[in-house]
Amino acid sequence: MTYCLGIITQFGLVMAADSRTNAGVDYISKFRKLFDFSLPGDRVILLATSGSLSVTQGVIAALNQDLRHHSADNLHSLSSMHDVVRYVGDKIRSVQERDRPWLEKDGIDYHCNFLVGGQIRGEEHQLHLIYSQGNSIQAMPEMPFLQIGEAKYGKPILDRTLNFNTSMDAAATCALLSIDSTMKSNISVGPPINLVTYETNSYAIRHQLQLRLGDPYLAKIRKEWETALRNAFELMPPIAWQHLAEIEAEEDILID
Amino acid sequence: MTYCLGIITQFGLVMAADSRTNAGVDYISKFRKLFDFSLPGDRVILLATSGSLSVTQGVIAALNQDLRHHSADNLHSLSSMHDVVRYVGDKIRSVQERDRPWLEKDGIDYHCNFLVGGQIRGEEHQLHLIYSQGNSIQAMPEMPFLQIGEAKYGKPILDRTLNFNTSMDAAATCALLSIDSTMKSNISVGPPINLVTYETNSYAIRHQLQLRLGDPYLAKIRKEWETALRNAFELMPPIAWQHLAEIEAEEDILID
Repeated sequence: MTYCLGIITQFGLVMAADSRTNAGVDYISKFRKLFDFSLPGDRVILLATSGSLSVTQGVIAALNQDLRHHSADNLHSLSSMHDVVRYVGDKIRSVQERDRPWLEKDGIDYHCNFLVGGQIRGEEHQLHLIYSQGNSIQAMPEMPFLQIGEAKYGKPILDRTLNFNTSMDAAATCALLSIDSTMKSNISVGPPINLVTYETNSYAIRHQLQLRLGDPYLAKIRKEWETALRNAFELMPPIAWQHLAEIEAEEDILID
Repeated sequence: MTYCLGIITQFGLVMAADSRTNAGVDYISKFRKLFDFSLPGDRVILLATSGSLSVTQGVIAALNQDLRHHSADNLHSLSSMHDVVRYVGDKIRSVQERDRPWLEKDGIDYHCNFLVGGQIRGEEHQLHLIYSQGNSIQAMPEMPFLQIGEAKYGKPILDRTLNFNTSMDAAATCALLSIDSTMKSNISVGPPINLVTYETNSYAIRHQLQLRLGDPYLAKIRKEWETALRNAFELMPPIAWQHLAEIEAEEDILID
């Protein structure tokens, strides 16, 4: 599996991804899943991918080829994020059109998802999720993050701590902790973690980070987070139990 | 969906379940999923269920019927938790044998899972998970919890805070927070929450609790947990960014 997430706040964007790929549990590799297609000064375009590696690599290759060949439509020529999202969706469709019948015959999963975050000069910064079918949704202030891949383990921390007014640094820490929570609970998500932040109207990536296996910062943040959680935990108000070992009363409640 | 979990520590057991059942998102109901089959003084047997409601209710009805009819094998006559788990697994198989062909024809999910926790006099307290196929696994000191249903959202908090030496009260709070995290992130899991604790060698349920929608304790624990998380969050060490807006350096790392 994979876990990638994008966060959009009034201040900018955070995109993050793990790098583990597996075919079953007995063939685990590292592949980059976060790609930077920015044209500094004019636009920032960040892509994160999940799902079938052959399909997502096919899409990334097609995007790169259009750039190299200066095709009429490419990630540096399109004039809006809306067009970029449609264009990436079309690439997904064309790779799937070619490979899907062959994968489907052997029961191999061909699904994929893309996150696209960025800003093109003249527009607001935006974050989109493109589905395997090529259609897409956009993150909104009320729902300031989008996830792809193994999303469930890392969602509670985002739900509890993020909103559209969260600072860039806090959003970046939140993204790291969300991926770290997922790595801790699911072996199919693993380092290195790639993390990028973009500040709105800057048209250039602000910060980036790659955390490898055994990275001391990753170890430190995990340890401090666990200590903080345990401390938080000990401050919880004691449970107000309703009955004390009164089995009959309990049976009234537990069995109809 | 549903979310139920069982925790086993050296001190006893905690079992907890939500009560939401849904067929799609447009038919949501409340059904009990935590059942007490204890015989105080001799044994404590707690069951939690997830999956097809018609199958799990069929199993619970069969268990109750064997008790009423004083069948040779019933939850009060079997002499070990191992036998109890095999017996419940057989009931799952017999309900599925009857209904599965009809459900399968219409593509209706017939899967279910059971948690069985408790202690029979003369044995250690135990926690088991019975799969839809009737086979089972047992929780161990190294893995002191088992979950069924919508398990992923609530797993990180268990992974980070629980071990076999956790106190009963802390384990109960942890169970509540795990369910609350799931409810916050997934609409298919909802109150009332049922929570029961059992202290080893007591052969009677120790504490129980039912938290309904809008329960002030549930609201309080959620609010305090969110505050504690945000505070923990602000204490995280700042991210040590590797490069500052050096796009070329970033491209080396982000694009091969």
